[in-house]
Amino acid sequence: MAYQLYYWPGLQGRGEFVRLALEAAGAPYTDVARGDAARGQGMPALLHCLQDASAARPPFACPVLVDGKLEIAQTAAILLYLGPRLKLVGASEADRIWTHQIQLTIADAVNEAHDTHHPVGTGLYYEDQKPEAARAAKAFRTERIPKFLGWLEAVLERNPKGDKYLVGGRLSYADLSLFQLVEGLLYAFPKATRRAAKKTPRVVALRDRVAQHRRVAAYLQSARRIPFNETGIFRYYPELDA
Amino acid sequence: MAYQLYYWPGLQGRGEFVRLALEAAGAPYTDVARGDAARGQGMPALLHCLQDASAARPPFACPVLVDGKLEIAQTAAILLYLGPRLKLVGASEADRIWTHQIQLTIADAVNEAHDTHHPVGTGLYYEDQKPEAARAAKAFRTERIPKFLGWLEAVLERNPKGDKYLVGGRLSYADLSLFQLVEGLLYAFPKATRRAAKKTPRVVALRDRVAQHRRVAAYLQSARRIPFNETGIFRYYPELDA
Repeated sequence: MAYQLYYWPGLQGRGEFVRLALEAAGAPYTDVARGDAARGQGMPALLHCLQDASAARPPFACPVLVDGKLEIAQTAAILLYLGPRLKLVGASEADRIWTHQIQLTIADAVNEAHDTHHPVGTGLYYEDQKPEAARAAKAFRTERIPKFLGWLEAVLERNPKGDKYLVGGRLSYADLSLFQLVEGLLYAFPKATRRAAKKTPRVVALRDRVAQHRRVAAYLQSARRIPFNETGIFRYYPELDA
Repeated sequence: MAYQLYYWPGLQGRGEFVRLALEAAGAPYTDVARGDAARGQGMPALLHCLQDASAARPPFACPVLVDGKLEIAQTAAILLYLGPRLKLVGASEADRIWTHQIQLTIADAVNEAHDTHHPVGTGLYYEDQKPEAARAAKAFRTERIPKFLGWLEAVLERNPKGDKYLVGGRLSYADLSLFQLVEGLLYAFPKATRRAAKKTPRVVALRDRVAQHRRVAAYLQSARRIPFNETGIFRYYPELDA
């Protein structure tokens, strides 16, 4: 049966990390909130998923993945679940926990990228926290982007199976998430990210390798890939880049 | 063989979520950085763990758990690994992924609590971002504390096995993390947290149940439990509470 993904329509957001895994594996799925409300999909279905008072295991937020009777929220937990099913993680417990550890670190980087434009709180608009955002973005650009990309470079460099993938010798969901992180950073902070990326050639090469993956490439050119925009996690506000 | 935990000495921080699991299970472990440098422990051992250029799988940050040859960083990944070994998670995949989902949501709350005093960046002191912190703390107090505690209350209320524990009918690592979250919020934002907690009696009761757990109670009264202080995640700055 096809997986069902519940996520806000109109933005990549955290749902994109799940979409990339499903697309790379060629797994059948429905992006429910982007479907037709007349067919039981669309925003009403998303809101029902988030607010259903009868759910025994209610999600705190989306993305939510539904697989039969199982509902899973939290991006990293969804990928932990999907990894073995989509063959996007190694077989050993050591490889699985290492892949998850990398995913959680990428998630930290994603959170910090988001917080540059919402340092005071998600309940306020960017326009209501611009001075704070300017300071937060500077710290993120100068300290955090180089640190996160540098760590990913070290992970690739030290991989005993070679520097093509983060874990072992083949594609994992962490590689897909690295791609999305780099894409997002290049969109939101093009100058700062290009500068940092000069010191992380293996990260850049892996980003390119993922972009050329047959199914990922087809997805990126399809209408299913929502363009980056200023309602997502990675937003391009020129005043926050330098 | 005893587990080895690497974390900053002198603060609870994220390491505390791992300590609570190890303590509740009565598992043997060494809190390496709090040990004697003359015996190969202490800060030199922690810094070696974080900076070892020969590590094939380098941690981004601590806590790091070492179990034989395996090194795991990221608090939630460590608990994912320890859960079955310490009998602090259910046996089914559904229970395990749900417990992990709760843990990741608690981790989000912990991150947001931290960011109230460091909204601009972790590279700066609190004293250098007090106006921003005041705004961030207000949003966290009024919107996020009630939302996170309210969600945990709903998880307890809807648990088909009863409202004593978050998952199924017995203690999991998520319950221990709930305890630590509530303790931390009560320390950092006593007024706001007490106000929110009036609407979440099941969360309060679970916090009390964990505090009375025989091994946890012994731990909390021991010198192994570092007191809350203003170098950790949860800091009491009276001007940030209301």
